[in-house]
Amino acid sequence: MSEKLDPVDLTARLIRCPSVTPAEGGAVVLLQETLEAAGFTCTRVDRNGTANLFARWGQKGANKSFGFNGHTDVVPPGDASEWRFDPFSATEAEGKLWGRGACDMKSGVAAFVAAAVDFVRETPPDGAVVLAITGDEEGDATDGTVALLDWMAEQGERMTHCLVGEPTCPTEMGEMIKNGRRGSMTARIEARGVQGHSAYPHRAKNPLPALVRLLDRLASHELDQGNSQFDPSTLALTTVDVGNPATNVIPASAKAVLNIRFNDIHSGASLTTWLEKEIARAREESGIDFSMTVKVSGESFVTQPGWFTDLVSDAVEKGCGRRPALSTTGGTSDARFIKDHCPVVEFGLVGQSMHQVDEHVETAHVRQLKDVYRHILDRYFDN
Amino acid sequence: MSEKLDPVDLTARLIRCPSVTPAEGGAVVLLQETLEAAGFTCTRVDRNGTANLFARWGQKGANKSFGFNGHTDVVPPGDASEWRFDPFSATEAEGKLWGRGACDMKSGVAAFVAAAVDFVRETPPDGAVVLAITGDEEGDATDGTVALLDWMAEQGERMTHCLVGEPTCPTEMGEMIKNGRRGSMTARIEARGVQGHSAYPHRAKNPLPALVRLLDRLASHELDQGNSQFDPSTLALTTVDVGNPATNVIPASAKAVLNIRFNDIHSGASLTTWLEKEIARAREESGIDFSMTVKVSGESFVTQPGWFTDLVSDAVEKGCGRRPALSTTGGTSDARFIKDHCPVVEFGLVGQSMHQVDEHVETAHVRQLKDVYRHILDRYFDN
Ligand SMILES: [Zn+2]
Ligand SMILES: [Zn+2]
Repeated sequence: MSEKLDPVDLTARLIRCPSVTPAEGGAVVLLQETLEAAGFTCTRVDRNGTANLFARWGQKGANKSFGFNGHTDVVPPGDASEWRFDPFSATEAEGKLWGRGACDMKSGVAAFVAAAVDFVRETPPDGAVVLAITGDEEGDATDGTVALLDWMAEQGERMTHCLVGEPTCPTEMGEMIKNGRRGSMTARIEARGVQGHSAYPHRAKNPLPALVRLLDRLASHELDQGNSQFDPSTLALTTVDVGNPATNVIPASAKAVLNIRFNDIHSGASLTTWLEKEIARAREESGIDFSMTVKVSGESFVTQPGWFTDLVSDAVEKGCGRRPALSTTGGTSDARFIKDHCPVVEFGLVGQSMHQVDEHVETAHVRQLKDVYRHILDRYFDN
Repeated sequence: MSEKLDPVDLTARLIRCPSVTPAEGGAVVLLQETLEAAGFTCTRVDRNGTANLFARWGQKGANKSFGFNGHTDVVPPGDASEWRFDPFSATEAEGKLWGRGACDMKSGVAAFVAAAVDFVRETPPDGAVVLAITGDEEGDATDGTVALLDWMAEQGERMTHCLVGEPTCPTEMGEMIKNGRRGSMTARIEARGVQGHSAYPHRAKNPLPALVRLLDRLASHELDQGNSQFDPSTLALTTVDVGNPATNVIPASAKAVLNIRFNDIHSGASLTTWLEKEIARAREESGIDFSMTVKVSGESFVTQPGWFTDLVSDAVEKGCGRRPALSTTGGTSDARFIKDHCPVVEFGLVGQSMHQVDEHVETAHVRQLKDVYRHILDRYFDN
């Protein structure tokens, strides 16, 4: 039996790969070498220049095929001179590892890779361990986990359950598992009238009064009050733009964008219908011409509490000494794609420093996380 | 007695001076030469590079000092290739003179200069004829008629009544006199909250919902229903701008601009108070921080119907064969400055083509306008 894989060392080596989204930066190659050395069958599933890695130990399509999902790409570091340590140096100091991706989520990937490698070496399971690792989560995410899932479906590859290793803990290690996410959609609304002179408003058709009334209605509408598993849905007006520099000119058109984070009381389609109804009403009341385009970037989902969430919670409690809460709060993650294929939950590190200057992770937490992931595998395969 | 001054020829010569605001372009110099040759005392009252001309025939401070006001600057011609004739060629065709300023208002200036020159030559009055001609009306108007009026006050120069020669007729020559104008003010409102992530709206303070509600209230408020002399006051939202490209970001601030055209039921100050009250209410309801800057570019005014408006109406009827209506409609003009010094009315050409491509004027109208101005002088000085 070979030496155990150190997740902190692997995290540091990953941080030193400058994989600013969507660049591969050497990170996917490093993981492929590590996994192949441990007996995993690896396939690069690249799409449109984005590097993705599919790795499986055990038999394709096994009835017990546990999956891990994560990403190696990172957001840009910004001005490197503002960092205490070079963002790609992976400097260890004060019990922490510093660098871009230290928290989101090269550490998470390193932890599940190390757990999986040790697991299959030490206690080869009756089933498969699958790792679906993408280099495109922080960007548009169109060529990342979606590409992996498409390819897996074509190939007959499967995951029977999946854990996403994104940071999920607000402030303390072990605090929170995400067993679902709200959906997210963006609507772009344009109101078009007739340009004119401010002194002769009756000769023009100003789109702005109709648009601001519509936006007031949308923003003040209570979508729901939430339910046992979800916070209330929220609607955020993100921008309104006209760009008219002339105070004596009534503009011809005006644009607005809004973003809705919605729970399972709604769907992208039901909310689109609601928006269309409100727009039709505004059009009727004002005579202003409206158009809208909607992009649903993810539907809401929830993995119902049950044996799988219990299994993960037990593993977290064993590894971190505290029982995690189940939560569906926060933004979206690649779990929104995976939920169409198998039950999925998310558990990872404390996310506080993600996407920030001086991103860092406690090295002890990375080792704890590897332990949690190992406990999950042990329990899943009944070891 | 010398030959009469042809207002069409003078208009053509003025059009050939490229006096795109605020350039002098030779127009003010041409007028000064013309007026000095006719015995007018001329003074250049330039301010901040803007050319203005003060011309007086007769005694300074006379009890009867009739004034004309007009501007020689023009708005830019835009793409000259879109014009039938070069915009500074002053081509005569189809009974019309074509070019930038043909209508607004080199023709008006030429008509009152020609009328004044003939008048003082043919029937020298017991009093003064004053011409206050500016090269800055189409721009900010801060260095134009205001500068002339300031200088006149300092020098003891006066106008006892004034006629502004801007185009005033909507479609037919002689249709309309303006005996007042609505005021105009512009308010710039900024709402400031706290930036955040669209998925966590409770951690941010989005300024947009509060702003659109405020704007809806302002735009839907009926300021008044007008009165016997004025149309209702109007409020136009002219722009709303945030400039936030990220749909997952709640913006920190948002800006809006509105323009109010108001009658004598209001003042710049009373409307500012109303806006401040509505903003205070919005601030209280939302917790969003608002700020506002207001610029009142002119208060409303009306020259009450009476002997002066009758005198001008009679002259229009005599010159054009129709009795003009009195009106306070339309935008602002330099009359808003003059009304603080003496009674003022406006009468001029048909304004349809002003500020447009292929601006033009009927040559017959220019001669009619000179006749009207001459009738005014004749009647004013009891000739
Ligand atoms: Zn991430
Ligand atoms: Zn004008």
